[in-house]
Amino acid sequence: MRFYLNGRLVNFGEAGISPLDAGFLLGWGVFETMRACGGKVFRLKRHLDRLAEGCRRLGIGPVPKASDLQVAVYATLRTNALTAARLRLTVTAGNESVPGAGVPAAPPTVVVTAFPLSETARPRPWTAGTSSRPVFSGDLLLSVKTTSRAGHTLARREARAAGYDEALLVNERGVYTEGSVSNLFLVRERVVITPPVSDGLLPGITREVVSELAPGLGLKLQEQSVSADDLLFADEAFLTNAVVGLVPLAALDGHPIGARVPGPVTVSLRSAYAALITAEATLGDGAHLTTPDGPDVIK
Amino acid sequence: MRFYLNGRLVNFGEAGISPLDAGFLLGWGVFETMRACGGKVFRLKRHLDRLAEGCRRLGIGPVPKASDLQVAVYATLRTNALTAARLRLTVTAGNESVPGAGVPAAPPTVVVTAFPLSETARPRPWTAGTSSRPVFSGDLLLSVKTTSRAGHTLARREARAAGYDEALLVNERGVYTEGSVSNLFLVRERVVITPPVSDGLLPGITREVVSELAPGLGLKLQEQSVSADDLLFADEAFLTNAVVGLVPLAALDGHPIGARVPGPVTVSLRSAYAALITAEATLGDGAHLTTPDGPDVIK
Repeated sequence: MRFYLNGRLVNFGEAGISPLDAGFLLGWGVFETMRACGGKVFRLKRHLDRLAEGCRRLGIGPVPKASDLQVAVYATLRTNALTAARLRLTVTAGNESVPGAGVPAAPPTVVVTAFPLSETARPRPWTAGTSSRPVFSGDLLLSVKTTSRAGHTLARREARAAGYDEALLVNERGVYTEGSVSNLFLVRERVVITPPVSDGLLPGITREVVSELAPGLGLKLQEQSVSADDLLFADEAFLTNAVVGLVPLAALDGHPIGARVPGPVTVSLRSAYAALITAEATLGDGAHLTTPDGPDVIK
Repeated sequence: MRFYLNGRLVNFGEAGISPLDAGFLLGWGVFETMRACGGKVFRLKRHLDRLAEGCRRLGIGPVPKASDLQVAVYATLRTNALTAARLRLTVTAGNESVPGAGVPAAPPTVVVTAFPLSETARPRPWTAGTSSRPVFSGDLLLSVKTTSRAGHTLARREARAAGYDEALLVNERGVYTEGSVSNLFLVRERVVITPPVSDGLLPGITREVVSELAPGLGLKLQEQSVSADDLLFADEAFLTNAVVGLVPLAALDGHPIGARVPGPVTVSLRSAYAALITAEATLGDGAHLTTPDGPDVIK
């Protein structure tokens, strides 16, 4: 396997990230996790837009050009001969300067990794446990996909140790915000409900796609705060991220959610989502970037 | 310059950190910043104890042995021919495993860097600006020196852009907790006051040393919450960290603090601190670790 590091495709073990990289030292970076299907990265442009916005929020600059990042992403897929993959693109602030030691500040570090992913695998339903450590809705960085994820990672780790697949986070007011690696949805009488960003969460790209798909399926989508009762008495619930897509949420803290898992709304949204990925992989989504060399150039 | 990476001393640029390292990917690591004086790392054992506790809090394991870390730290000093240095020791959770791609989980990553530091330089007083983004005192990870420092780093960056040396953080109740890279103290009628850990802050090693030194100078030390008024009407204020030691805080948000900068209590504490470092460098502090090979072995 090879990965992309600052303009080069290198073998794992052959080169690495500087020990002075601000991403390594301080979690001073942003990232995107993406899915490729049929050789096409789903909603790449949208991911790159969000990444650029994250760079601006953290003051990481100069912000890498979207066209260069697109080349990097596709080059990483190609060098690993992958068409179905999960990808991670990370951009950090680059090397910290060390005055007096002749170490200058460096431009942002760009890393892309790609690993195989089955195109057809449908994950089994997940269970979730409530994290014991609330997030603070006033923390504006919760809406930025930074690499400073110790809080979410610890929540996930504790949930897994307790036998759950995922941790659900709550904020200081006790309402549910998101999963440690996913966004949260529930369904009640064919209304699809997800917490608002102001409750303290990362607005995922898949969350966005679900909101695009819902109207076409006769579903109403609402952003509103979600309590434990809302979840436990929901008709159904599901989680989303770019790699797993939509995954049914079967239980919270050991209490089952809904009469049937997956529920009918989850099933239709999941099918619509899978169809959309396939369609965009085949036809192009009209929103992907083009570069002078096209998206397939290996840099 | 050379650095220590997982048992090897390597040149910058010669080797680096894996792009799958959980520290790089998720800020899933802990670190210590330390000062060496006369070839001796001040309070190394205490730093290593805190690091080990941080590893346990995050579930990073197996926790590297203190004796191995001591060897790594001194080897890094020696290979760079440094006696006065600022050191950084970082331990992360190591490589994420990638099931299906033949990438196994790796043991923790250990990195040590060392850069020259003048033994005699006394930093000029600092100014500080109040961060606009409150921390949440309920966030228990604030008391762990994790590498997930985007929040503090952004606060510092914004303070620097506004012309200040440091950012002071406040929590959700509006009281001051710490600097982005320092602990906060104020002095009022020869009582030295610092916020309690429960307000949401990292208990620094230098903060601890100040509390050891205060009684010997006839000073009372109190932990109590610190408001803006407490700071602005203090007799004096200072900040601490392991690299700068004690640095006078001259002003907050443009308002001067105290009649004289540095104030007399700051001066005596700073002198006592400097004397302690020199004494321990010369005599040994009786608390440093010993290994079968002694602390000077280059691994």
